[in-house]
Amino acid sequence: MPLREDLLRYLNEDIPFGDVTSRAMIPDRRCMARITVKENAIISGLAEAEALCTHCGITFVRRVSEGADNQAGTTIPELEGLASSVLMVERTILNLMSRMSGIATTTRRAVEAARAANPAVRIAGTRKTAPGLRLCDKQALITGGADPHRMSLSDMILIKDNHLALVPLKDAVRKARAYSRYVNIEVEVETAENALIAAQTGADIILLDNMLPREVQRTLDLLVEHTMREQVIIEVSGNITPQTLESYAVLGIDTISMGSLTHTVKNIDISLEVRGAVSTVKIF
Amino acid sequence: MPLREDLLRYLNEDIPFGDVTSRAMIPDRRCMARITVKENAIISGLAEAEALCTHCGITFVRRVSEGADNQAGTTIPELEGLASSVLMVERTILNLMSRMSGIATTTRRAVEAARAANPAVRIAGTRKTAPGLRLCDKQALITGGADPHRMSLSDMILIKDNHLALVPLKDAVRKARAYSRYVNIEVEVETAENALIAAQTGADIILLDNMLPREVQRTLDLLVEHTMREQVIIEVSGNITPQTLESYAVLGIDTISMGSLTHTVKNIDISLEVRGAVSTVKIF
Amino acid sequence: MPLREDLLRYLNEDIPFGDVTSRAMIPDRRCMARITVKENAIISGLAEAEALCTHCGITFVRRVSEGADNQAGTTIPELEGLASSVLMVERTILNLMSRMSGIATTTRRAVEAARAANPAVRIAGTRKTAPGLRLCDKQALITGGADPHRMSLSDMILIKDNHLALVPLKDAVRKARAYSRYVNIEVEVETAENALIAAQTGADIILLDNMLPREVQRTLDLLVEHTMREQVIIEVSGNITPQTLESYAVLGIDTISMGSLTHTVKNIDISLEVRGAVSTVKIF
Amino acid sequence: MPLREDLLRYLNEDIPFGDVTSRAMIPDRRCMARITVKENAIISGLAEAEALCTHCGITFVRRVSEGADNQAGTTIPELEGLASSVLMVERTILNLMSRMSGIATTTRRAVEAARAANPAVRIAGTRKTAPGLRLCDKQALITGGADPHRMSLSDMILIKDNHLALVPLKDAVRKARAYSRYVNIEVEVETAENALIAAQTGADIILLDNMLPREVQRTLDLLVEHTMREQVIIEVSGNITPQTLESYAVLGIDTISMGSLTHTVKNIDISLEVRGAVSTVKIF
Amino acid sequence: MPLREDLLRYLNEDIPFGDVTSRAMIPDRRCMARITVKENAIISGLAEAEALCTHCGITFVRRVSEGADNQAGTTIPELEGLASSVLMVERTILNLMSRMSGIATTTRRAVEAARAANPAVRIAGTRKTAPGLRLCDKQALITGGADPHRMSLSDMILIKDNHLALVPLKDAVRKARAYSRYVNIEVEVETAENALIAAQTGADIILLDNMLPREVQRTLDLLVEHTMREQVIIEVSGNITPQTLESYAVLGIDTISMGSLTHTVKNIDISLEVRGAVSTVKIF
Amino acid sequence: MPLREDLLRYLNEDIPFGDVTSRAMIPDRRCMARITVKENAIISGLAEAEALCTHCGITFVRRVSEGADNQAGTTIPELEGLASSVLMVERTILNLMSRMSGIATTTRRAVEAARAANPAVRIAGTRKTAPGLRLCDKQALITGGADPHRMSLSDMILIKDNHLALVPLKDAVRKARAYSRYVNIEVEVETAENALIAAQTGADIILLDNMLPREVQRTLDLLVEHTMREQVIIEVSGNITPQTLESYAVLGIDTISMGSLTHTVKNIDISLEVRGAVSTVKIF
Repeated sequence: MPLREDLLRYLNEDIPFGDVTSRAMIPDRRCMARITVKENAIISGLAEAEALCTHCGITFVRRVSEGADNQAGTTIPELEGLASSVLMVERTILNLMSRMSGIATTTRRAVEAARAANPAVRIAGTRKTAPGLRLCDKQALITGGADPHRMSLSDMILIKDNHLALVPLKDAVRKARAYSRYVNIEVEVETAENALIAAQTGADIILLDNMLPREVQRTLDLLVEHTMREQVIIEVSGNITPQTLESYAVLGIDTISMGSLTHTVKNIDISLEVRGAVSTVKIF
Repeated sequence: MPLREDLLRYLNEDIPFGDVTSRAMIPDRRCMARITVKENAIISGLAEAEALCTHCGITFVRRVSEGADNQAGTTIPELEGLASSVLMVERTILNLMSRMSGIATTTRRAVEAARAANPAVRIAGTRKTAPGLRLCDKQALITGGADPHRMSLSDMILIKDNHLALVPLKDAVRKARAYSRYVNIEVEVETAENALIAAQTGADIILLDNMLPREVQRTLDLLVEHTMREQVIIEVSGNITPQTLESYAVLGIDTISMGSLTHTVKNIDISLEVRGAVSTVKIF
Repeated sequence: MPLREDLLRYLNEDIPFGDVTSRAMIPDRRCMARITVKENAIISGLAEAEALCTHCGITFVRRVSEGADNQAGTTIPELEGLASSVLMVERTILNLMSRMSGIATTTRRAVEAARAANPAVRIAGTRKTAPGLRLCDKQALITGGADPHRMSLSDMILIKDNHLALVPLKDAVRKARAYSRYVNIEVEVETAENALIAAQTGADIILLDNMLPREVQRTLDLLVEHTMREQVIIEVSGNITPQTLESYAVLGIDTISMGSLTHTVKNIDISLEVRGAVSTVKIF
Repeated sequence: MPLREDLLRYLNEDIPFGDVTSRAMIPDRRCMARITVKENAIISGLAEAEALCTHCGITFVRRVSEGADNQAGTTIPELEGLASSVLMVERTILNLMSRMSGIATTTRRAVEAARAANPAVRIAGTRKTAPGLRLCDKQALITGGADPHRMSLSDMILIKDNHLALVPLKDAVRKARAYSRYVNIEVEVETAENALIAAQTGADIILLDNMLPREVQRTLDLLVEHTMREQVIIEVSGNITPQTLESYAVLGIDTISMGSLTHTVKNIDISLEVRGAVSTVKIF
Repeated sequence: MPLREDLLRYLNEDIPFGDVTSRAMIPDRRCMARITVKENAIISGLAEAEALCTHCGITFVRRVSEGADNQAGTTIPELEGLASSVLMVERTILNLMSRMSGIATTTRRAVEAARAANPAVRIAGTRKTAPGLRLCDKQALITGGADPHRMSLSDMILIKDNHLALVPLKDAVRKARAYSRYVNIEVEVETAENALIAAQTGADIILLDNMLPREVQRTLDLLVEHTMREQVIIEVSGNITPQTLESYAVLGIDTISMGSLTHTVKNIDISLEVRGAVSTVKIF
Repeated sequence: MPLREDLLRYLNEDIPFGDVTSRAMIPDRRCMARITVKENAIISGLAEAEALCTHCGITFVRRVSEGADNQAGTTIPELEGLASSVLMVERTILNLMSRMSGIATTTRRAVEAARAANPAVRIAGTRKTAPGLRLCDKQALITGGADPHRMSLSDMILIKDNHLALVPLKDAVRKARAYSRYVNIEVEVETAENALIAAQTGADIILLDNMLPREVQRTLDLLVEHTMREQVIIEVSGNITPQTLESYAVLGIDTISMGSLTHTVKNIDISLEVRGAVSTVKIF
């Protein structure tokens, strides 16, 4: 879950000078409200929404669990609090849960498709997340069943073509190895031969970028032939779609990373309905 | 453009402890780089990307303008700076420009479709933006040709069903009117009759929510009949898709607001290519 | 009410390294305290003071309501909490309530004077607030009975002489209209003729700047003559004082905006009196 | 001068989503502008205004110095920069300079009046500043010629009636003395006898609160009689007005602190005039 | 105690993307834990640790007081809370308490040694604290029994050799005196003669820098001879070690300031032991 | 290097209300200054000091490189800027460089001692850093030649005794493995048998905690016997001192992690000397 400061920033962005609609007309009363999902979906973002509601003095009663696969029409949580607080936080928590549930749902579908083809393969995310939403997007990937992959530039070494334009491959891996024994080293390659070199030089993970399934197979064969297959994790990536996912999953690879899981998001339709005032608390 | 603090937050999220890959292996040299769009798209986010590059000491030379409609393969800007700086900022500016260009491109297509049907109609955004990205998403809408609609809960009164569950319609409009003469008042209605009441009570804008085209037409007719049509701006909204857009646009309405423009985003494929080192600057 | 971060900033400014007086001598005991207004005044800032006290673990019991017109000597709230907490927050909450009550009191007097002359006229604030206190100052205006006017440069278009030095009037209004259908457009003019042009070009609000009452009257007459009076809100502004207020209010205008309400503030005298220790809670 | 973050916060408060007026209509051109004072005044806030302008890429050429006593009509600085930047920063820097110049002007007048009566006496400020503006208000006091007094609860021990409700006087001074040898100790008293006790117990400064001039004189006499006058600084305070200032100043006291200098502020009228575009820089 | 924002920053630095170990394996259960000191030590940092635990929903039961002198093996506080919260906050609170207790312990030993030689002498800290930890380090000094000395550049005037390279001594003191009557003035000197000049010019405190004990004695004699000894506080400083401390303390000086107390810190060994789960609270 | 915000926070902590000494007496002139190391040391913190100086408008000319081993008396950088800026930043940059150089120097000595015994062994840091200084402390470790180890709880899984009190060892490793294929898994054990289990269950790194050298040797033998030695990295830790370092280094282990490198720091003596004014720049 993001730090509370980040969640509050999402809310504050929507109320630089408060909620003028509520200020103009909403009496200082408590109300009940219900958040409902309007389509079949994996729900994500419950902890984030709960933290924001709690901060605003709203009781948040979960009716489903993070990651549950819900039918359209299911009530997600029920809320009770000051009407002005509920209406103030409404759009922010809906935007959060709709996006996170969108990512979780697409991810779950990809995980299921991949595992149907090969139970050992994993779907992974990338750093192609919405700016400022890294942790929410990664949480939604985890909720969907994916491996979150690295969180930022600080937690793993990933040598890509842009690095190799500046440093030769073997040199790059050797320097990475010298930097720390606690950081994994992944190398992005586009040919079977470079995959072998990367493995033999000490990479922990090989990212096969934009290869056709038959090229991936040839790379795996070459690694097996040189007894390097067991030494490395094999990730494939590069515009893999739901349509082509299975053709990669059936190969003996370890993970398939998909930027589209977080960069192309279809929000889940979730809405909040105020169910009437509970009682008057004070005349302000 | 977002405040510099917000842009830096997007960057800092990716480097809580710096870029370990560059730290391990990238020499302290300057390099050239080129950012290229890989598909036909409206480009948005240039000012944001430039501000981040400038902050990192990278020269950013625009090759196209914000809002230009580019062919796949077009170079967007060229960069020159320390290789470690370019690689540090790469993912953040690509994530920003890809999302903003995705929104701008979809928006432009919707604007073109709507105006082909009715040159006077406008496409508008909503507050269904990604959390923390309100201003970027709104900027992309503007770049795409849309009306940004209200920025936050602070700058316009919009009375929706959840308010009307707590306050009667006429009372709500009257209180809104009493709050300030400088804030516009919009009322969301679901029937022609309520549209008429809202207009007669003093609303500036009527939002016809989830109405079929024929219901919209009936509402317009009723307003004309009561000589209220000129007093109000008519907005239609509610799951309007590219497929149904034209059927609404042809009616004599003022704006069509579409949450999908920002809540369901397909990133544009944009990439950065380092083009080799320029010269050694210092041995650190 | 300002965001909690802003309120805390006001407090933290007074305690960069804690309260050395309390640290040196105040035992870790609870105390009662009473906040009293020393002159007749409209009280404002209760919610802000309460939020700060609550944050510091102090019970805050309101004895009057926001906006009440109190006699000198009235107890505003009573407090109970750790003596060191009460003394730490004392100056910050008194500074806040004294300023806000000062603004609210002056505003209420101006509203009463204006309405005695013309019950339909409204007093409005401006953006001439103390830096960093926009929301507190605007809240105090609302408490005093004024229209807050725009909150910032982001929520309304106001075309002033400095804009017209760069863009011709008609062009400016036309571009404003094209920007968005959801943002009000106000134009500042200094002649009746320009008022008419602004109205005819589509401005929603006309600001008559620094006009004498008879010039205002001539402007209103000209607008009526061209049947534009009903299309616009008429605001007058420019060094209007309590002495001249009535002479403007009696004209058929809509609002009188007064920068002096927030830029020239006489704090209300409010003080806090510790009423002795309640009981020892722990030996620290 | 406040930290840059504080100055930016003052600006950002006015542009949560940018300046919609400029965005709608101001071409991307450079302009000249002139800031002029409209009444005779001591100018304060130049460094703060310059820092904000510099941050926004605006050249700021000072035409007068901080603390200069200027005639109405004097140009304070001249500016050159993007018109959209000048218009964005205008209200923030005017609000800052108007308030600070208001404080500096009132302060200078008080300093002059006091020194005419007694060249050795000093005028001092208090902590009754606008929330969030402590450093600006204190800077304006210094510019006006006053002693800033303590900046916050962290930098001096001041024992007031609320402390003495919890700790006996002698005990309080003794504990303060034990806390640190580097922090001054001031004690607020309301009788000559307590002043003597405070001095004899080791206070560095005695604050005579709400005493009439003849009571102040008797206190001074008592201290002289007990040879304690030279050991302490004598400050008088408590609703001292320009009218009563002289009657205190002529007594042999050291400082007169006046909360009104910062809690009751009359802004100086300062305005900015755009003087036309310089040249087009780019088509955005 | 530092502001809550500062404490949270210490925690957040350790969890930019949460605690992956707990996320991967720790069930959502409550646990007990015990924090134990592993060597004889003065404990400091209890309030800071408690505030962080409370923020994380952990009950923190103090078993010893701030400043108590504990035997190795003593339980400091006991904790109860979600296991994932306890493990998340563990390292941050141990790092804080270990450093603060290290400072407090060394300080207490120095205070005891100095007072054994001269009960009236005080040990003082300096500004040589760890960046970002000023308030924690000063709190630990206070807990250890030292005078915290000035907190920052804002709360006292200290004229050092680098100032005197730019301004002559008498001129410097005179200007300092003119700045404010509420700020103490300390002057660093390296000769007895300059100490006398500083005292005669009006310094409140004289810092004898890097003098041998016999030079300090000669300076005291010279001040006595000119009847200035009672007018000033005498501080000695400059690489004073536990070995040389006594030889200074026996002289009739007031304070000995030691940068080493905070710049050369030996952490106290403190550890946290989870004592098993309390009960399952929910299946997340 | 820490983010600029963090560096500024270190500076701002020292100037909540500016530098009163400079404000009172330092003319607005430029000066030269020289920073010198007073003892033989590895210098660290140059980039951090340079960034702060640059922010304050001070030219910073490096005379040595980060990581250079310097003799006492060496000039580190030379500075030129406004005297008031140099004196404002002095203590902050000295505190930073003194601590970082202290860590780097101790680290380098440990690295040299360990490598003399075994050229393949590496010294590593831990998370026992000063609160708020994680990145500076880690940078100093790197400068000293150590492996930084994990940066935070977010970038590696490290299963310690406190986790094993809640989850059985095999279960813990299995769950860690399931969490992500991109995160290394380290397990802390106290017996050879558990080391073998951890290795066989899939740990990447085994941390032998508080073992005597002969116990470490037995563990290595057991791993070799079961052909698991090549599958894991072996780290030893637990109160290893300079005296015992060699006895561990000679064993065939991979890394020795030492908390003392950052938790018990002896600052290097570094000082700044102003070398006189350059020229007057302006009369403020």
